[in-house]
Amino acid sequence: MDTKALHQITYGLYVVASRREDALNAQIANTVFQITSEPPAIAVGINRANLTHEFIVASGLFVASVLPQDTPLAVIGHFGFRSGRKSEKFQGTDYRLSPAGVPYLPASLAYLEAKVTRALEAGTHTVFVGEVSQMELVQPGVPLTYAHYHQMKRGAVPKAAPLPPAPVEQAKPGRWVCKQCTYIYDPEKGDPEGGVPAGTPFTALPGNWVCPVCGASKDAFAPED
Amino acid sequence: MDTKALHQITYGLYVVASRREDALNAQIANTVFQITSEPPAIAVGINRANLTHEFIVASGLFVASVLPQDTPLAVIGHFGFRSGRKSEKFQGTDYRLSPAGVPYLPASLAYLEAKVTRALEAGTHTVFVGEVSQMELVQPGVPLTYAHYHQMKRGAVPKAAPLPPAPVEQAKPGRWVCKQCTYIYDPEKGDPEGGVPAGTPFTALPGNWVCPVCGASKDAFAPED
Repeated sequence: MDTKALHQITYGLYVVASRREDALNAQIANTVFQITSEPPAIAVGINRANLTHEFIVASGLFVASVLPQDTPLAVIGHFGFRSGRKSEKFQGTDYRLSPAGVPYLPASLAYLEAKVTRALEAGTHTVFVGEVSQMELVQPGVPLTYAHYHQMKRGAVPKAAPLPPAPVEQAKPGRWVCKQCTYIYDPEKGDPEGGVPAGTPFTALPGNWVCPVCGASKDAFAPED
Repeated sequence: MDTKALHQITYGLYVVASRREDALNAQIANTVFQITSEPPAIAVGINRANLTHEFIVASGLFVASVLPQDTPLAVIGHFGFRSGRKSEKFQGTDYRLSPAGVPYLPASLAYLEAKVTRALEAGTHTVFVGEVSQMELVQPGVPLTYAHYHQMKRGAVPKAAPLPPAPVEQAKPGRWVCKQCTYIYDPEKGDPEGGVPAGTPFTALPGNWVCPVCGASKDAFAPED
């Protein structure tokens, strides 16, 4: 068996949100898909250990925001690598509420609100199926794919590129990899959003610098080999 | 509700095959995704009216072949718009058998064989979850996305293009649309694979010409407006 075959499956990337009474939470998910047209129903696979899973079970609601291709890595890191058990994810985040009171991102291309009708437990994950109760286009744009996100994280495509070519990965000297999320720090690019100019070696980064994707500290990084 | 929001969900395109005793069948599906890593398990949504659905229920097996971006439209039409109830789909088709005896395409990028562990009925469709029993890369290449397929069908991207820009649809004079599968016949391009040279008006096509995607006859076409 070659598990690389799994990487040939195509996905988008979504912020999937839910609520429990007045508490809101959301996470990154790639497994959102339509399952029936009449009535329109969508499904999502969610890890049972996640707080969003608890919220979906409690409210029977989820909303998927379709991320655009130019989504900053920090947004994906915020929703994907930090737990809502430790901090309120929507605090300080620009969001709107769907008719059922579940948050979606105004920076998304579209949102789909669903009311859970069925759930299938499958080991570590649950597949929730929900009838779409509201859906709207938010703004025009190209959806972010999971493949493109991985290319961005490895610094292999500029943010505005149309869509990625087949990945060609080459280790470059001076690059360091985040062991938590696989983000690559490239000294040629620095981390402009984090105030680090291009040309800064990893070892010269300030001690309080954190991974722009997942927030891990410097000691979570190892040299790329 | 704006159902166009559903079109912002990203999918790949797959030939999903199964068998019932010695009989083989397959169809096109876009809803293949990984659901757990430990153990590796994948899911697929299949219309309950399809023969492949019957075969998956009978054998508890399915194999997804990941289609490459340069898949000819005729291949998708063969598996996607013709029923295995009327003809043996693998007759005259190049295929190989997975260890469990389910066909996959040697022209695919990868195949994943799964043994069904759970099934969730969801209206017109069933979501089958299967533990991956075998998976292999078949050849390198870029996976075909559902969005790219739709662009190809509308003649909006050349076959070798990397990936589609946001769709800009404009009706052109002389183009006819297949009402069965939405393929567009463009007289500027003709249908070279069907022996029709560029510059041939739709009305001049031979009476036995059929839609290169779904095999519908000429009278299934209407002028694009």
